[in-house]
Amino acid sequence: MKVTIVGAGAVGASCAEYIAIKDFASEVVLLDIKEGYAEGKAMDLMQTASLNGFDTKISGTTGDYSRTANSDIAVITSGIPRKPGMTREELIGINAGIVKDVAANLIKHSPNVILIVVSNPMDTMTYLVHKITDLPKERIIGMGGALDSARFKYRLAEALGAPISDVDGMVIGGHSDTGMVPLARHATRNSVKVSEFLSADRLSQVVEDTKVGGATLTKLLGTSAWYAPGAAVSALVQAIACDQKKLFPCSVLLNGEYDLKDICIGVPVILGRNGIEKIVKVDLDQAEKDKMQESAEGVRKTNSLLQV
Amino acid sequence: MKVTIVGAGAVGASCAEYIAIKDFASEVVLLDIKEGYAEGKAMDLMQTASLNGFDTKISGTTGDYSRTANSDIAVITSGIPRKPGMTREELIGINAGIVKDVAANLIKHSPNVILIVVSNPMDTMTYLVHKITDLPKERIIGMGGALDSARFKYRLAEALGAPISDVDGMVIGGHSDTGMVPLARHATRNSVKVSEFLSADRLSQVVEDTKVGGATLTKLLGTSAWYAPGAAVSALVQAIACDQKKLFPCSVLLNGEYDLKDICIGVPVILGRNGIEKIVKVDLDQAEKDKMQESAEGVRKTNSLLQV
Amino acid sequence: MKVTIVGAGAVGASCAEYIAIKDFASEVVLLDIKEGYAEGKAMDLMQTASLNGFDTKISGTTGDYSRTANSDIAVITSGIPRKPGMTREELIGINAGIVKDVAANLIKHSPNVILIVVSNPMDTMTYLVHKITDLPKERIIGMGGALDSARFKYRLAEALGAPISDVDGMVIGGHSDTGMVPLARHATRNSVKVSEFLSADRLSQVVEDTKVGGATLTKLLGTSAWYAPGAAVSALVQAIACDQKKLFPCSVLLNGEYDLKDICIGVPVILGRNGIEKIVKVDLDQAEKDKMQESAEGVRKTNSLLQV
Amino acid sequence: MKVTIVGAGAVGASCAEYIAIKDFASEVVLLDIKEGYAEGKAMDLMQTASLNGFDTKISGTTGDYSRTANSDIAVITSGIPRKPGMTREELIGINAGIVKDVAANLIKHSPNVILIVVSNPMDTMTYLVHKITDLPKERIIGMGGALDSARFKYRLAEALGAPISDVDGMVIGGHSDTGMVPLARHATRNSVKVSEFLSADRLSQVVEDTKVGGATLTKLLGTSAWYAPGAAVSALVQAIACDQKKLFPCSVLLNGEYDLKDICIGVPVILGRNGIEKIVKVDLDQAEKDKMQESAEGVRKTNSLLQV
Repeated sequence: MKVTIVGAGAVGASCAEYIAIKDFASEVVLLDIKEGYAEGKAMDLMQTASLNGFDTKISGTTGDYSRTANSDIAVITSGIPRKPGMTREELIGINAGIVKDVAANLIKHSPNVILIVVSNPMDTMTYLVHKITDLPKERIIGMGGALDSARFKYRLAEALGAPISDVDGMVIGGHSDTGMVPLARHATRNSVKVSEFLSADRLSQVVEDTKVGGATLTKLLGTSAWYAPGAAVSALVQAIACDQKKLFPCSVLLNGEYDLKDICIGVPVILGRNGIEKIVKVDLDQAEKDKMQESAEGVRKTNSLLQV
Repeated sequence: MKVTIVGAGAVGASCAEYIAIKDFASEVVLLDIKEGYAEGKAMDLMQTASLNGFDTKISGTTGDYSRTANSDIAVITSGIPRKPGMTREELIGINAGIVKDVAANLIKHSPNVILIVVSNPMDTMTYLVHKITDLPKERIIGMGGALDSARFKYRLAEALGAPISDVDGMVIGGHSDTGMVPLARHATRNSVKVSEFLSADRLSQVVEDTKVGGATLTKLLGTSAWYAPGAAVSALVQAIACDQKKLFPCSVLLNGEYDLKDICIGVPVILGRNGIEKIVKVDLDQAEKDKMQESAEGVRKTNSLLQV
Repeated sequence: MKVTIVGAGAVGASCAEYIAIKDFASEVVLLDIKEGYAEGKAMDLMQTASLNGFDTKISGTTGDYSRTANSDIAVITSGIPRKPGMTREELIGINAGIVKDVAANLIKHSPNVILIVVSNPMDTMTYLVHKITDLPKERIIGMGGALDSARFKYRLAEALGAPISDVDGMVIGGHSDTGMVPLARHATRNSVKVSEFLSADRLSQVVEDTKVGGATLTKLLGTSAWYAPGAAVSALVQAIACDQKKLFPCSVLLNGEYDLKDICIGVPVILGRNGIEKIVKVDLDQAEKDKMQESAEGVRKTNSLLQV
Repeated sequence: MKVTIVGAGAVGASCAEYIAIKDFASEVVLLDIKEGYAEGKAMDLMQTASLNGFDTKISGTTGDYSRTANSDIAVITSGIPRKPGMTREELIGINAGIVKDVAANLIKHSPNVILIVVSNPMDTMTYLVHKITDLPKERIIGMGGALDSARFKYRLAEALGAPISDVDGMVIGGHSDTGMVPLARHATRNSVKVSEFLSADRLSQVVEDTKVGGATLTKLLGTSAWYAPGAAVSALVQAIACDQKKLFPCSVLLNGEYDLKDICIGVPVILGRNGIEKIVKVDLDQAEKDKMQESAEGVRKTNSLLQV
């Protein structure tokens, strides 16, 4: 199992790190355009192998895509990071050009690759990859819902005073502050609805905190976050690599599902060897349906800025 | 088991991350003086919990040492990071002041704490902590040899074309480019001496690459490395927390061992519940003894710059 | 962290094994009365350490309780195993004598120990330990619901065609085929109620399969199961040892909670450093309340056979 | 990655368990001829998934080889277990028939499979598989040295008072009490030769204890051991599945290496995607060479009992 990660910034390197720690892949290639940068990250990470106990081999390359040949899965993290005050949407101009170039290079050397798109604005970049490549749609996956759901669980656990492993919850919709649709109605603690433990007000606060989860971290850190984004990608990669058939909300091309068409947006999917193995239908109530449509409007607005 | 890490920079945060992933501690507190920074790191890391599968609780605080109360182990990573071209030794003036302050604050709130010193120049900062605190000597541990040994194994594996888990090797002496004493004569692959597989020249190259391991990464990354340093600390923390009695080369106060006195420098020690449980005597040949004395000279020179 | 496991049979050894693999404890002592048996299991398990990567030290002893001194947690698995056709209830006469003796010996050498009772009939044996020892009630925990819940999740996942990590569910009540109360109404897949994916009939089947989970395995294996029981215990042990504050259904002494008094039966509790840190109240509907009372009747009937 | 294990006895089930816990494979099929037995073991193991945190799917079958189709790796553990007093050699008559049948069935449904032979007498059974199948020689691997080396490390650690993860050592030669050749001269603690810490007498004792490692356990347990054998197999499986290129002593067909021909016996090999990727030459001193030849004599004697 060979995995390529394009972009050796904090998210890409964290992703490589967690893949290595989970120790299922034989090889992770980090690629960056900054001279020596991916090599440095790979070297530092490999020096943890004897301490963290893994056998995955991580290597780095400055822009040499031949090194990525025959990757089973590739992750695109490249792009300008969101800065404080900058919306995900403002990034589109620059990042579309980068993502096009990266996707073409990856597919050239790994025609059977499954692509995971992380670059922002993520739903739009995922849509872009569908438009500009010939990959079957089950092999193009946008990472957003797995991260947003992890942040939702974090906020739920905080409100409940429970460990995160005891809570569950899902966020669908667009991967942006205004686009996220946390399915709060479903959220649970050890399978029991959290509404048994939290007031409606407190749960609303959890939802609001979740939606601004990325922005909150950007303010605290002075740059966008990377640990949880990297971990979210690594979970998707393992689900595919190990054919786990696990469910994650991911941004995928819809063709009528959830009453949406010709758009990439976060919905629950099953991930396995073939990438997206199934889109899972979850019943939404009217409020959730409305939010989903509204979220889609936001994504379409961003998509319209693409010059494909 | 409560662990405090002072300094939420890249090394401190990596250390918190690996402790959490190993999932033996109940609580990790990250403390930094930069407003909101430790809180941000802690939040991002906690958002990986559902994805990386751990139950350790990481929290952050801006300078409030009362939050560190009753820590079993505390790690001091504070200090100015080494910049390209800067020697570890040049850092001493600024970092001594920081380390003094941090150690005093930690001990005030956790009188039974075991301290792990990471701040550079590490051997000197460890020595400083002995001089300015009343902690018994087995509770002051300098982290250097575990990192240098990890880098040595990385270079050995690279030369052998073997996975890192198949090689073993140890680096003692001072934690600096000129101070390190990689015990190349002993290095093994699956218990067989590497000299069976590598020429003397290639092995010398491995030793040289190891010694400049930190500097090499600083050049590639534009800042000093953090993954392997963080992983090395986390290994020491687990050895103590879980009373593993594992051997690591650490910087400890010597009183005649290895023919050295009144100095902190890297020698093999057993780590367990009580901190340094034993200093292990390994036979050195004359060349190694000479290098060790020379290394000690370097450390003493730096120590002499301390104004205790 | 020192853990003692009394009974080196399949359940006890599996428990030791999983504690070691999770690598948070310094020491696990296996005690058995069969000459050399615990020593043999400990030796075989320790020979996996270099292959499975743990540093926990497992040792065995034939009946020497002084070796268990100062255990933080002790697990009582001793007793006659349930044979095909034998009910849990039939075991009581023999097992009560064994459990009394074991508990007394453990407490003698580890007065601050937290006891986890696994011996069958488990709810009654847990109650017995309350009656015959002076341990505070938060330090006596019966293991049943964690196992039954794991079996419930297994059956839910099977019905859903989903991986087990995507489902959640809880079983409370007595730890017997007729006593279990699977909270099927709450069960979820990725936080969404399973009733969205399963028919009422299929869900009823899941509940029935769960309740006879132990018996099903006893038929297939020719003896009662051990892997999942061992894993369930190891999860409780880690929750306590690492102060995780995780919720598990456990058999605890009730004093009015869930409208029950002077009985040990499975209800959701928070486990941490102090053992049972809290009994969690989950709203039951009338059917669940009725089943819970009926389950309690069954447990009381067995308790009445005790000659305390 | 699909792995089949034939024989759901204690070794086979432990092997399945550790593969699952390491969480790199998508699927493990346990096959046994005893009605319902493999299904029972698989069910019990799957019920640990939510507690031990893995997503590998384990299933069982009573003799239906079509369920093993397209396995990447298959492990043959079938055969009569060694009873107290029974030599490995006495098993040959019965086990050869079983192994022939199993190998033929496995290859029929998985022509590209890599076979790992565990059945005893192991070196002879591995040789048998070479004789009766058309598999290329790099795809037939006998498991023995990985186990014997794990036992050697256990005994070394015991003698040193060190944790097992700090020691290294290798056992080559035939997988029998008289055939094993522990390379004591090379054994290390943290890369330092153990002869620095142990007297020659104590080291001799370690070697003797290692050689009777299996027999010692058989005496204590009343049956042959299973945890470490299962763990050893799981390590080989992961090395192949994850293309780790790790070195293990395995029983492989020699063609002049180590001055031996037309025999399967334990020598150091590199395991990767293709099975045996390389036989590694380690210099033996004259005593070791003599022991190796003597060991080979023993194996040949057993081989001569085969009626191929």
